[in-house]
Amino acid sequence: MHVLIIGAAGMVGRKLTAALLEAGAIGEEQIDRLTLADVMAPEPPLHRIPTVPVAADLSIPGVATQLVAERPDLIFHLAAIVSGEAEADFDKGYAINLDGTRDLLEAIRRQGANAPYCPRLVFTSSIAVFGEPLPPAIPDDMAHTPLTSYGTQKAICELLLADYSRRGFVDGIGIRLPTIVVRPGKPNKAASGFFSGIIREPLNGMEAVLPVEDSVRHWFASPRAAIGFLLHAATLDTAPLGQRRTLTMPGLSATIAEEVAALERFGGSAATRLIRREPDETIARIVAGWPQNFDTRRALELGFLAETSFDDIVRAYIEDELDGNRPG
Amino acid sequence: MHVLIIGAAGMVGRKLTAALLEAGAIGEEQIDRLTLADVMAPEPPLHRIPTVPVAADLSIPGVATQLVAERPDLIFHLAAIVSGEAEADFDKGYAINLDGTRDLLEAIRRQGANAPYCPRLVFTSSIAVFGEPLPPAIPDDMAHTPLTSYGTQKAICELLLADYSRRGFVDGIGIRLPTIVVRPGKPNKAASGFFSGIIREPLNGMEAVLPVEDSVRHWFASPRAAIGFLLHAATLDTAPLGQRRTLTMPGLSATIAEEVAALERFGGSAATRLIRREPDETIARIVAGWPQNFDTRRALELGFLAETSFDDIVRAYIEDELDGNRPG
Repeated sequence: MHVLIIGAAGMVGRKLTAALLEAGAIGEEQIDRLTLADVMAPEPPLHRIPTVPVAADLSIPGVATQLVAERPDLIFHLAAIVSGEAEADFDKGYAINLDGTRDLLEAIRRQGANAPYCPRLVFTSSIAVFGEPLPPAIPDDMAHTPLTSYGTQKAICELLLADYSRRGFVDGIGIRLPTIVVRPGKPNKAASGFFSGIIREPLNGMEAVLPVEDSVRHWFASPRAAIGFLLHAATLDTAPLGQRRTLTMPGLSATIAEEVAALERFGGSAATRLIRREPDETIARIVAGWPQNFDTRRALELGFLAETSFDDIVRAYIEDELDGNRPG
Repeated sequence: MHVLIIGAAGMVGRKLTAALLEAGAIGEEQIDRLTLADVMAPEPPLHRIPTVPVAADLSIPGVATQLVAERPDLIFHLAAIVSGEAEADFDKGYAINLDGTRDLLEAIRRQGANAPYCPRLVFTSSIAVFGEPLPPAIPDDMAHTPLTSYGTQKAICELLLADYSRRGFVDGIGIRLPTIVVRPGKPNKAASGFFSGIIREPLNGMEAVLPVEDSVRHWFASPRAAIGFLLHAATLDTAPLGQRRTLTMPGLSATIAEEVAALERFGGSAATRLIRREPDETIARIVAGWPQNFDTRRALELGFLAETSFDDIVRAYIEDELDGNRPG
C-alpha cells in the first residue's frame, strides 16, 4: 500500500515515518511506498521501502490535488501551524489549518468522482477544541467552545471530516492528542514547552525554567503513545464511530508536582535542582484555561492506549531519546 | 441606524421586515434605513423608512463586500439553502451555507480594518447541528454531531461566528430556531412541511397529508415567536454569552396527537377530518432522526420567549394569517 504523510517533517511526522518503515506494514498490508510531504521536503530516510520526499504547502491552491493524484491508500494529515501562530496571524491560521484541510478533503472527493476512491484519512485534531466552562473530566460528547482560532479551525475540520466520511468521500478518523511530553530536541516557543523542558533539560544536565505553580494539572502522553494512536487509527474499524469520527485520545492527568517527583525518581535531586522556578503570569494565565482531565472511555474501548504514570512517560523519553541511559 | 437583512425574501425575512418597519426602532435607536437583500431583490414595502432592495447572491465572491460597504449597524443573516437541497447538491450547500457566511464575516472584518466597525450580526443557525445519539432534552453544551451537510455547515458557521466575535471583528449572536409552524402560504418541499400543512390546509378548508404516526414528537415555535427571537437577539447584551455565542431558542415539545387536538379545538372535527393519514416510510425515517426536546434554560434566562402550548401556535396563525377568523 501507498502511505502519504502530510506534515512529515515535524516531530510526530518523523517518528511516525520511522515507525512505519520499521513495521513495514499497516495491519496485514505491506507498505510498498511512502510519500513524505511537508512545507520543506523532508530528508528521505535510507530504507528498502521507497520513500519519496515532497515539498508541499497545503495552503497553496492545487497542492492538495497533486498530493492525492497518485491515490494513496492511507493518508496521515498532521500538518498545522501551532496555536500561538494561528492566534498571531489570523489569515495564515485559517489558510493552513482550515482551508488546507478542506482542500485535501475536496481533492480526495474529486479523485473519487473519476473512479472509486475512499482512502483512510487519519487527522490530528486537538484538545484545544474544548474551552470554558469545562467539567472536571471532559467527555467526548461535550460541545466545542474553543478559546483560540487554532481550536476553532480544528473543530471545523472535525465537522468536515465527519461530513465527508458520512457522504462516503473519505474514511476519516480524527484523534485529539494530549500535550506531548517529553518532546525531544531544543525548547520550542509553544506556551506548553516547559512541560517537556523541565524533564528534558535536567536529564541532559541543563537548567529549565518552570513558569507555573507545582499544583498546575494538565493532560499528557509520550511521543511513543502518540505514534501508537496514529497507527491504531490507521487500521481501526471506523464503522462503530458513526457520525462521531473524532475521539479524544487517552492520556495521563498529572500535576507539575507529580511530574517533578517522576523526574526525581530517574534523575535524583541533581536533576530536580536544575528546575528554576520563575513564575510567568502570561503563561500561567494561558495554562489556567487549558483542560486538565478527560473522560476517554470511548477511545479506551476502541483499543487506544496511553501511559498511566509520569514514570512511564519519563522512561519512554530515556529509552527512545537517550538510548536508555539515565543520567547521574 | 441602518439595518441589513440578508435573506429578506423568505418567510422569516418578510415577517422580520414588517416587524422592523412597524417598530421603527431597534431598542432605543431609530431605524433610518433598511436594506433588503436576497438572491432575487425583494419587493420593497411602501413605508416612510427608506427601504432599499438588493439582488445579492452571497455565494458569489465580492457580493458580501458590497453588502457591508455602507457599514450597516445591524445585520440579520437569514440566507441559506435548506437541508434537502444542501444534501442533494453538496457543492451548492457548502458554497452558500458555509462560504457565503464566511465571506460575510470576512467582509465585516475587512471593513473594520479600515476604520473601527463591529456590527451586531444575528445569525440563524439550526437544531440540525445536533445528531444522534441524542439525550431526551438536548442542552446547549452538547457536542455537535450533525447528520446532514446542512447541519454541518450551520455548526461550522457557529464556530466561525464565535471566533470572529472573540477576536472583536463582529458582535455575533446565533440562534437555533425550532421548526417553525404554522408556515403561511403554499406547501413547500421540506420534509418537515407536513407539521405546518396539517394545521394550515384544514383551517383553509383543504385536505392535508400526514405521513408519520400521531406519536411523533418534535420541537416547535410560531413565526411570531421566531421574529421575537430575532428582535431580542438584535438588542441583547452579548457580553454574558462568552465564547458560546449561539443559543438554542425556546420552543414547544409536542406530539402530532397534541397538534391535532389543538386543531380540533379551533376548527372542530370539520378540520381534523381533512387530515389524511398516508404513512411515508422515507419521511418517517428522516423525522425519526430529528430532535424532540431541548433544555433551553440559557435562552430563557436571557429573555427569549416562545409558545408553551400548541393552542398558542394555532392562535398565532389564525391571528397573523387569517385576520383572526377561525373557520367553521
